[in-house]
Amino acid sequence: MLWSGWGDPARATALPDPVAALLRELLGVRPAAVPTVALQDVEVPDSRLAPDDLAALAADVGAAHVRTGAEARIRHTRGRSTSDLLRIRAGEVSDAPDAVVLPASHDEVLAVLRTCTARRIAVVPYGGGTSVVGALTPPRASLPGGRTGGFAALDLRRMDALVTLDETSRTAVLEPGLRGPAAEALLGARGYTLGHFPQSFAWASVGGFAAARSSGQASAGYGRFDDMVVALTAATPEGTLELGRAPKSAAGPDLRQLVLGSEGAFGVITSVTVRVHPVPETRAYEGWRFASFEQGTAALRGLAQDGPLPAVLRLSDEAETMAGLADPAAIGSSRDAGCLAVLGFEGTRAAVAGRRARAAEALAAAGGEPLGAGPGDRWEHGRFDAPYLRDALLDAGAFVETLETAAFWSGVPRLYEAVRCALTGALSGAGTPPLVMCHISHVYPSGASLYFTVVCAQGTDPVAHWAAAKRAACDAIAEAGGTISHHHGVGTDHRDWYAREIGPLGGAVLRAVKDRLDPAGILSPGVLVPGE
Amino acid sequence: MLWSGWGDPARATALPDPVAALLRELLGVRPAAVPTVALQDVEVPDSRLAPDDLAALAADVGAAHVRTGAEARIRHTRGRSTSDLLRIRAGEVSDAPDAVVLPASHDEVLAVLRTCTARRIAVVPYGGGTSVVGALTPPRASLPGGRTGGFAALDLRRMDALVTLDETSRTAVLEPGLRGPAAEALLGARGYTLGHFPQSFAWASVGGFAAARSSGQASAGYGRFDDMVVALTAATPEGTLELGRAPKSAAGPDLRQLVLGSEGAFGVITSVTVRVHPVPETRAYEGWRFASFEQGTAALRGLAQDGPLPAVLRLSDEAETMAGLADPAAIGSSRDAGCLAVLGFEGTRAAVAGRRARAAEALAAAGGEPLGAGPGDRWEHGRFDAPYLRDALLDAGAFVETLETAAFWSGVPRLYEAVRCALTGALSGAGTPPLVMCHISHVYPSGASLYFTVVCAQGTDPVAHWAAAKRAACDAIAEAGGTISHHHGVGTDHRDWYAREIGPLGGAVLRAVKDRLDPAGILSPGVLVPGE
Repeated sequence: MLWSGWGDPARATALPDPVAALLRELLGVRPAAVPTVALQDVEVPDSRLAPDDLAALAADVGAAHVRTGAEARIRHTRGRSTSDLLRIRAGEVSDAPDAVVLPASHDEVLAVLRTCTARRIAVVPYGGGTSVVGALTPPRASLPGGRTGGFAALDLRRMDALVTLDETSRTAVLEPGLRGPAAEALLGARGYTLGHFPQSFAWASVGGFAAARSSGQASAGYGRFDDMVVALTAATPEGTLELGRAPKSAAGPDLRQLVLGSEGAFGVITSVTVRVHPVPETRAYEGWRFASFEQGTAALRGLAQDGPLPAVLRLSDEAETMAGLADPAAIGSSRDAGCLAVLGFEGTRAAVAGRRARAAEALAAAGGEPLGAGPGDRWEHGRFDAPYLRDALLDAGAFVETLETAAFWSGVPRLYEAVRCALTGALSGAGTPPLVMCHISHVYPSGASLYFTVVCAQGTDPVAHWAAAKRAACDAIAEAGGTISHHHGVGTDHRDWYAREIGPLGGAVLRAVKDRLDPAGILSPGVLVPGE
Repeated sequence: MLWSGWGDPARATALPDPVAALLRELLGVRPAAVPTVALQDVEVPDSRLAPDDLAALAADVGAAHVRTGAEARIRHTRGRSTSDLLRIRAGEVSDAPDAVVLPASHDEVLAVLRTCTARRIAVVPYGGGTSVVGALTPPRASLPGGRTGGFAALDLRRMDALVTLDETSRTAVLEPGLRGPAAEALLGARGYTLGHFPQSFAWASVGGFAAARSSGQASAGYGRFDDMVVALTAATPEGTLELGRAPKSAAGPDLRQLVLGSEGAFGVITSVTVRVHPVPETRAYEGWRFASFEQGTAALRGLAQDGPLPAVLRLSDEAETMAGLADPAAIGSSRDAGCLAVLGFEGTRAAVAGRRARAAEALAAAGGEPLGAGPGDRWEHGRFDAPYLRDALLDAGAFVETLETAAFWSGVPRLYEAVRCALTGALSGAGTPPLVMCHISHVYPSGASLYFTVVCAQGTDPVAHWAAAKRAACDAIAEAGGTISHHHGVGTDHRDWYAREIGPLGGAVLRAVKDRLDPAGILSPGVLVPGE
């Protein structure tokens, strides 16, 4: 992973000239004043861990797996939100972990948690490092010992096995450090797939998918990651949780759902048992055009409620369709009117043909115009490329960021308008009027997600400007009745709005669970749980 | 509800003579020595609530809604397990609540919980009274104040509104006291259905469905009740929980899933927002025969994993098929060989025709033999009648009880054998060799439920004999890796095995949540939460 941006540095691309020109004319984007510093010039603060702390950790996982070098610490600094990138590109790594610890097993994780509890060292579980909500950055004031406390990034990359595959139950036991492509390769060799393809797929990890309730681009067909998990094991400072003896149970509250989404604040997920599927015989993507976002939304709702449901189902609003974001390779060159929907079908040839035909009938009846395979294939081709595009935009002096929410269908129009208005108002007020685009990419019978992309000029202080705009958007989400995150999580960035969402008593319940599992408060302090 | 048995007394039926003869010959069933006592002869223990306790409760809900008469207290004594019935038929009501309190609103529930917290009066939420796991019976030792403490049944029948129907989101807000038929009538008048039809449908309540994670006979098509709930409100001694802003969210743990299944131990569910569906254009049931339970199980697994999934999907084992339990009206008269499967399809005529054809193809390929509509229609006709049959069996001197579990598909055969052996061994050892029957009635891609029905002679002490057999079955479930309940819940009966299932740390988490929401421990003491 590029330390100061996204993905494989060899795949970085510059912004096409026409796009740069468009950004200049439309949004007043000017080349960034400050170039990215070089890795070797970044100054890391001194580690706050004492030699005997490091020796104790080395006793738990082996000395080779406790790293305190500058590069390891820089590479584990924060996540991949745009603000994270702007800060690290400027060489600002004040939030760097004091050490990187790499356990190889559940028992080693338990040992590290015991050591860190005894020594009041904070621990932040680290999978792919792709958080965009500040989940990897414990606020200094939240650290045990306050501003003087240190923290270790618990990098789970060595726990990367496909432990077992149960072909009868169609489940697999996966370790948390497996990244998307490795998990798919191991399962694919046996003829199976998870069907989980979030935009962060290439880098994000199985443990992170579970801990942050990730949702992939084929969620309509395969479900969200939290739907896929039927059992899990977690290591906590107080011991081990092993949960899930059946797909569903009436034996009390579903404690799996308390660990899923806990973002490292309750424990470290050390294995998940997930549903797997035979690799589909065929996949087919296609595009549809709707006259308006409202018309397209109604059509998607029809498929979500009455079927047939494709594996992939997404709808760009007018602005995103116009910008051509559904096809990053062609961004800026699209002149499409209306709203583009992309459908992807997976399964046997016969099943795909049947579902496509029935979906086509339903979409045509809802006012859709079929565009054939072209737009679908282009979306599929570029589906993981947007984060690379962000690096190019940042290089060109543009600011680009995303945020997302979800609501019940009847609340979607109000939520859509509220968030657009808040973002446009806040950024225009800061002198950087934005282009605000949106798509629906996850649908349910009772509601849907809204995913916003914002582009504007960086202006004088993009981190501060965005923080203000994000606050306005989060307030708008809370007031319009949406959830503060559909699939990015809470982290530190969303914690205040999450507290509003679950109310003081909901927050108190989380605090009680946290205090029981992590009485010293070492796990991801300041992340998720309100009122720390 | 019949105070000493099931349902509408006018619908009670005697056992057909040939069945009685069969039970006599096969299982040594002899007429019960003790007839059911008359309601007016039952002696209720004195209420442990003081006059000022009752006055305080009357101030909360109105004097007319605090009942201490013998009949009200008898009618709220325990639930509807066979042991519950045997004890109440004998006039044994030592577990009667000390008062029955009927609140009319969320705020009245909050007020009652505050009053009962202040006065250390235990509160057991009461919906339809159909628990079969002892969830309505706090052990005396668990009551605040120990054996001298009193408890109130909080009967929610006055909270029985369809609050709102959101046709766009296809959701409805329902109050907890609504019973199955009333909920269906209110929704049906608007063209909608919940699709939730457990065997207890006629008497069980919406709040109970949620609090105990009920699963209906059409769960393959409509999902379990916990799947249907997208938002809920609960009143706790510490205040209100309002949870659920979207169908799914990545905003932290899913706290809805902590309240669902909490069986009154954390709070009182005062409303649920549930998914609803347009009343289907048509319903069609059909029967299939498989040579063995193993063959039929594989066929069901195929439908659960590769589709098409009917709304109703169930498979009786050889014993249950032979006994004809799928058609209570004809019990004992069946001479069917093999294993009977019942499928029910719901939806538009076109969709039903399509799914039936594809299912038929899959089942035939899996070795099934189509039996046409007859067996399906007979099952559908008698689907809610088994509890009436139980009363007739008890009258005739037979003992009959059910228990259920679930596991991942690969674990189903071992679980099936383990539970059968445990039940047969324990009851044979007690001198009452049983007929043990089983069916699969809820399927998932990764696993299924197993539902056992046991019939034997009552013997000398049926309550004690069954307690021992049930312990043996629960041990077998735990050892074979099943969950202690797929849809009956934990209550008091399953609490020890539930503690094993979630482990000491899982139990400690529940205890922490309980202590935070109900610090005085007034809510359903001794129910669900381990270690009380």
